[in-house]
Amino acid sequence: MLEQSVLEVFQRIVGAENVEHTKASLFSYSYDATPGFQSMPDAVLSPRNSEEIAKIIDVCREHRIPIVPRGSGTNLCGGTCPTEGGVVLLFKHMDKILEIDEENLTATVQPGVNTLDFIQAVEEKALFYPPDPSSMKISTIGGNISENSGGLRGLKYGVTRDYVLGLEVILANGKTIRTGGKLAKDVAGYDLTRLFVGAEGTLGIVTEATLKLIPPPETKQTILAIYDDIGAAARSVSSIIANKIIPATLEFLDQPTIKVVEDFARIGLPTEADAILLIEQDGAFEVVSRDILKIEAICLQENALNVSVAKTKKEAEALTTARRSALSALARLKPTTILEDATVPRSKVAEMVLAIKEIAQKHQVEICTFGHAGDGNLHPTCITDSRDKSEYERVEKAFEEIFEKAIELGGTITGEHGVGLMKAPFLEWKLGEAGVEAMKAIKTSLDPENILNPGKIFAKASRKRVVSGN
Amino acid sequence: MLEQSVLEVFQRIVGAENVEHTKASLFSYSYDATPGFQSMPDAVLSPRNSEEIAKIIDVCREHRIPIVPRGSGTNLCGGTCPTEGGVVLLFKHMDKILEIDEENLTATVQPGVNTLDFIQAVEEKALFYPPDPSSMKISTIGGNISENSGGLRGLKYGVTRDYVLGLEVILANGKTIRTGGKLAKDVAGYDLTRLFVGAEGTLGIVTEATLKLIPPPETKQTILAIYDDIGAAARSVSSIIANKIIPATLEFLDQPTIKVVEDFARIGLPTEADAILLIEQDGAFEVVSRDILKIEAICLQENALNVSVAKTKKEAEALTTARRSALSALARLKPTTILEDATVPRSKVAEMVLAIKEIAQKHQVEICTFGHAGDGNLHPTCITDSRDKSEYERVEKAFEEIFEKAIELGGTITGEHGVGLMKAPFLEWKLGEAGVEAMKAIKTSLDPENILNPGKIFAKASRKRVVSGN
Repeated sequence: MLEQSVLEVFQRIVGAENVEHTKASLFSYSYDATPGFQSMPDAVLSPRNSEEIAKIIDVCREHRIPIVPRGSGTNLCGGTCPTEGGVVLLFKHMDKILEIDEENLTATVQPGVNTLDFIQAVEEKALFYPPDPSSMKISTIGGNISENSGGLRGLKYGVTRDYVLGLEVILANGKTIRTGGKLAKDVAGYDLTRLFVGAEGTLGIVTEATLKLIPPPETKQTILAIYDDIGAAARSVSSIIANKIIPATLEFLDQPTIKVVEDFARIGLPTEADAILLIEQDGAFEVVSRDILKIEAICLQENALNVSVAKTKKEAEALTTARRSALSALARLKPTTILEDATVPRSKVAEMVLAIKEIAQKHQVEICTFGHAGDGNLHPTCITDSRDKSEYERVEKAFEEIFEKAIELGGTITGEHGVGLMKAPFLEWKLGEAGVEAMKAIKTSLDPENILNPGKIFAKASRKRVVSGN
Repeated sequence: MLEQSVLEVFQRIVGAENVEHTKASLFSYSYDATPGFQSMPDAVLSPRNSEEIAKIIDVCREHRIPIVPRGSGTNLCGGTCPTEGGVVLLFKHMDKILEIDEENLTATVQPGVNTLDFIQAVEEKALFYPPDPSSMKISTIGGNISENSGGLRGLKYGVTRDYVLGLEVILANGKTIRTGGKLAKDVAGYDLTRLFVGAEGTLGIVTEATLKLIPPPETKQTILAIYDDIGAAARSVSSIIANKIIPATLEFLDQPTIKVVEDFARIGLPTEADAILLIEQDGAFEVVSRDILKIEAICLQENALNVSVAKTKKEAEALTTARRSALSALARLKPTTILEDATVPRSKVAEMVLAIKEIAQKHQVEICTFGHAGDGNLHPTCITDSRDKSEYERVEKAFEEIFEKAIELGGTITGEHGVGLMKAPFLEWKLGEAGVEAMKAIKTSLDPENILNPGKIFAKASRKRVVSGN
């Protein structure tokens, strides 16, 4: 609970109308899209500009009040759950596109701008901002930066980090810094820009971002390849890349996911197939035509049952939209949907998909697997009911084994969702004690009072590793 | 001076044959490619593996001995000058390409591998590693990582940072960490990989790197555009990009540079021209043909006197080689060559080039300007004689004004050369006091005893800013 006097200070800073502290408001911001994590904040503040944020930070530092910056709360790692109470910062008043600079191919935005709105504004200028997290209809650019969000176009175009050229950040000490700029190259000291990207609000509050834009691809084509063998689908992924083709999108859906998505989207997906690949290539017309022919041939050679190229833009969009709806489709089935994010080297996708299947069977839990196969970034998703304690324990054990397997294959515990609360106990599995220590040292150096999104990334205790092969 | 007992410890760790401490050896490693900086180390060590490096660090930490990791010393910021003595670490025994993984499109290398050897080994596997610093014939990948080196292909392909997927790093506390991996996506905690890239050896010693490879472009074409007006050349640069063409290379040379390079390379460059642009496009055959036609038309429209496409591969290579030789060509003229690295937003290139010309005239110093115009990354280069005290003072003043101007235009003090010793006094101009403080906090958190390349990046005192417009 905040003291009344502190609440009044906040009211003076942002205006009374921008301080919410009713039970209903606090409840609304006590959780995000991640199941299983909930904790009440003490107040919800909507500052109108950077100066107000600096003042809020000064008050929070003085009174040791946690600050949790929050975009739209679509993250899947509990990154914006106010575990230790304190204030949730909203960016609803800081949602402007400040500039689209067509000469330097950059955009400067406030953190609260909606991702899809921004992508569309850029497209209206015949430019292209590639990062396309599945939550982009709801998410904000500030949230994308904090989580270093990926998306379907990551294979060819990279992730949010690759498009952040400069930031305005307010540090825990209340000081404002500006990193980078409208610059293709900048090596003036440590790469703070990329340190703040993906830092989940634990190192500073991002208040403005300069983003890189690129010329849009001329055209795009979409392929659906159908398999009766998961291994063949995975081999197709490796084979396409080994043939020096980097598609814009290379998505994998296993049979349980296909069924659920078809039931939701009703576009005629082959529900009897063991797996499908959804492949998009974009670029110059001639290149796309040639790549699509090659991809078709490779999939058939790797024993796809059927390969079809979408004939119309509408047909292509239906396929992509269906894939993007996978989480929503799965979420309809049972009360709790846990979407995970284990990532492995591309060459290990087949092995990982099969391991997930075995682990699910072993623990008798229902796991659908889909994801960005070209990136090795899989989303094993469990539909369950968190109220069923015995099943939920089995789900947790299954996911621990999935993380363990990903690490064993040279992978990571999270490819694009972030650590937050959810993966914090597993961070050491990827980085070792010395790696986590190094990160903690950086955190402490920039936020010695631990007021910025405390409890995230670093767990109070690391989870013990399951001993594999039992 | 190191105590004899410490020298003996080093001899036991790396073998007596890998400890150099004769005056001649120490002298050889007392400077790098940067004029004006020299300082004797106490010993030069050539460890054979990571374990030996960890042991060296332990000894250095105990005795507070500075460690200066050094590739080939081609950097232009005094980054490897052992200002505070101590040991210089060489990587001549750690120069292997450990793996080229054609399935995951990655390579794993030791830091001492020569950049060009590596690029060629990758090309033999029909893959492509784009970062191509002008020093690549001599430089090492470890050095490139420490300086986040750029190169001529940076406009389209990015810099070294964009190709580092994972690192093995030994920290100042002697512990070894592994960041990233053969992974297209990884958000497990802070982005340590990119923090170590460009950290100039001040945060840890890189002992292994996993690099990203891409499919090579099918073909490449080269254009030479000749101008009698610098402004027209700069406008062509902006206009090409505004027309949504991103060339692989977009280099600018002013008249003094053209003359010197022609005198060196003798390939028929137009020495009467006010400026030339050297433009390369690579990619699929149809796209390159189309882009080259468009670029030709744009340059003519912007009043190029003449635009010619290289007819043979040999002719194209002669042009690129001539550009790459600019520093060597200039260095022949006078005893001291200072190559700077001011970088501005692309739209400000014309203004910056003209400002450099005016500043040179004002201070009566000879400055040639060339560089990566597409990146806004210019290399104003002064040929002078450091023994001529009065001229050298004017050179220093001129460069201060150049940095000031770059910052004023939204640019940075260094685009690809790094801060090292040379730019340290100017870092605050770019980052402000709070920015430098944040970087220092990170440095101190990872290297509290300040043994890793001390004196670099952070200056004892910031240079006072020249007041513009006097």
